[in-house]
Amino acid sequence: MKKLSEEQKARMALAVLVEPGCRELGQLVRTVGPVEALECLVQERGISVALAGAARARLYLAGVRKSQDVGTQLAQRMAERAEHIGARIITAADDEWPPALDDLVKASRTGSALRRDTDPPLCVWLRGPLRFAETLERSVSVVGARAVTGYGAYVASEFGYGLAEEGFTVVSGAALGVDVTAHRGALAGGGPTVAVMACGIDKSYPAANAGVIEQIATEGLLVTEWPPGTEPHKTRFLTRNRVIAAATLGTVIVEAGSRSGARSTLGYARLLGRKTMVVPGPINSAMSIGCHMELREPGTTLVTRVEEIVEEIGSIGELAEPIVGGLRPEDVLDSLQARILDAVRPRKAATAEYIAAVAGVSGRDARRNLPLLVELGFVVSTADGYRLSSTPKAAISAEEGR
Amino acid sequence: MKKLSEEQKARMALAVLVEPGCRELGQLVRTVGPVEALECLVQERGISVALAGAARARLYLAGVRKSQDVGTQLAQRMAERAEHIGARIITAADDEWPPALDDLVKASRTGSALRRDTDPPLCVWLRGPLRFAETLERSVSVVGARAVTGYGAYVASEFGYGLAEEGFTVVSGAALGVDVTAHRGALAGGGPTVAVMACGIDKSYPAANAGVIEQIATEGLLVTEWPPGTEPHKTRFLTRNRVIAAATLGTVIVEAGSRSGARSTLGYARLLGRKTMVVPGPINSAMSIGCHMELREPGTTLVTRVEEIVEEIGSIGELAEPIVGGLRPEDVLDSLQARILDAVRPRKAATAEYIAAVAGVSGRDARRNLPLLVELGFVVSTADGYRLSSTPKAAISAEEGR
Repeated sequence: MKKLSEEQKARMALAVLVEPGCRELGQLVRTVGPVEALECLVQERGISVALAGAARARLYLAGVRKSQDVGTQLAQRMAERAEHIGARIITAADDEWPPALDDLVKASRTGSALRRDTDPPLCVWLRGPLRFAETLERSVSVVGARAVTGYGAYVASEFGYGLAEEGFTVVSGAALGVDVTAHRGALAGGGPTVAVMACGIDKSYPAANAGVIEQIATEGLLVTEWPPGTEPHKTRFLTRNRVIAAATLGTVIVEAGSRSGARSTLGYARLLGRKTMVVPGPINSAMSIGCHMELREPGTTLVTRVEEIVEEIGSIGELAEPIVGGLRPEDVLDSLQARILDAVRPRKAATAEYIAAVAGVSGRDARRNLPLLVELGFVVSTADGYRLSSTPKAAISAEEGR
Repeated sequence: MKKLSEEQKARMALAVLVEPGCRELGQLVRTVGPVEALECLVQERGISVALAGAARARLYLAGVRKSQDVGTQLAQRMAERAEHIGARIITAADDEWPPALDDLVKASRTGSALRRDTDPPLCVWLRGPLRFAETLERSVSVVGARAVTGYGAYVASEFGYGLAEEGFTVVSGAALGVDVTAHRGALAGGGPTVAVMACGIDKSYPAANAGVIEQIATEGLLVTEWPPGTEPHKTRFLTRNRVIAAATLGTVIVEAGSRSGARSTLGYARLLGRKTMVVPGPINSAMSIGCHMELREPGTTLVTRVEEIVEEIGSIGELAEPIVGGLRPEDVLDSLQARILDAVRPRKAATAEYIAAVAGVSGRDARRNLPLLVELGFVVSTADGYRLSSTPKAAISAEEGR
């Protein structure tokens, strides 16, 4: 086990004593440092009654006496548990710590009650071969509904796979539905994937995803800010979502009901100035209602292809190819020529003058342009005048080759 | 037959001699008036070679000699044909003329070749009981793909019906697919509907929609700027689209392929400062590609419900009701209470102190809030402490009634 500094031990102890995201504790740590902050907590000095009481309750639960060296004791326990399950613990002092997480300091508390616990993690538990900071340099979170539809599963899988192919790390929450499908897609695409969990790193939650979670621990990275043994709670999922948003360059929602937690991830991404992307779906699908509500907000980008996600979050110049349909007559003709062509009949040949009158152009314009339409293969010239070619598609294909 | 003024006769003759939307002719009419403009056309005086040649070709086709009173002759013919098929002709001089159409004067020619013919109509042929200007006061166009999917047909039908119920006139192009389905929906909703056609008012195009077109002529309004006998051409559909966009307060695209003509209608709506609304769909549906391309443009509003369309184009105060899911614990609890509730176990009761430690709150906060959670029915108080209620939903329903 690597030797822990006093600072690291204090941060780990603080993570045990206080629920993640606590702004009061974060500010204290930033002001006096983690060692002194822990001292304040234990001595119930210079902190709110609520924070003091919460720490006291946790100390009691942990069976640690205040007279003992709380930091060393708790940190030692956590380090042992981490080693036992093959996890490592990092703090802001480590190389592996992603600076992006510290942007959460700037995420100010808003009117919403759920936005209260937005302070950065004090430390995180990691399991897996990837280096945390490095793998996030080119990363995107793909999140969404647990009750995914076949459509959402298709999209999550395609996006996970495609983003992996493009060299992006796919970050998600290992939840049922969109999350796990995106992870699976990324693994299938041979790309790195990171699961940010809302429970202890020793828990495989949800149990149905235990297999994938184990695969991520082997090939990707499991991340959590809760100490080993912590159960997932509803409010913890929301607190966890801020890390998914902060860790990545942008967040993509694939499917989301009107009350989906994925919307909170997108909300944090917006708050942090990350790219916010949403996949649309049928308007009569309950699992796209939340997506459409988000798309009606300014600043949210609708995405339909991996290329469009890459265009949003990738480097300069990674632009999505425009979608083009098949080449049509109007692509090679100007509006005058298109009008003349419209006036040429399929079987019955007509003079240039007649065609001009029907098209509403001058006889001169018709006489000038009809030979070009013949040359392009749209029109056939006969003894009686001009009629439509029966194989205009060949003409367009020929034009494509130019 | 009502007596036509010289101005009206001249406008009708001009509509026969020149394809609609011609900016050069429009400017001439606005400068010298329709009577003098017709004279210029016939005498080939002060106009471009192209315009002179086009008018000459049409005069030749119509079999009218320049020595005759061209205006009276052509207008007389058109008036007779209109009366024969139960149509009326109106010009800007009529009460029934919608001032909104004249906004097209401001729609400046852009880089796109297809945006050239944007001048307002010189006159329109009408069939049906509705008054044109009046019925457009509260109107919206619903347009889209001919190759509609089941999804698009569902949406077009629902929107047509719902907008009719809200007292809106549904305007469309009577085409196969989205257009005709929206018209049908509006008719079923008992509302007014207007079909703007790209051919003579005596043509039922497409033939498959002849029944609906006849019903619109009986209950709604058929509109066209092409004289009787005119065939629909591809370029005419695009020219016609500017009228659909100009006539209404906003345009809704239901489904559109990447090259759909509906996108040109939306483009005109944008150019004219009308509301541009688009329905999303599955990203793997070819018939939603054009919709999503438009939604990726700034200023386009995603709509999923009739109320959202009404909010865009209706009067002040016609706001869409927010979408709300069922009431959940987090709706009635603050974040502290939600955290405490998360820490209460389903079957095994625990003390307030234990619950506080798990939740990460102070014992005092737990002791204060647990009785409230009991009162709300989320939690049950037992001799051993607190456990989750087995019927929390009842509690929420009770709360809903407050």
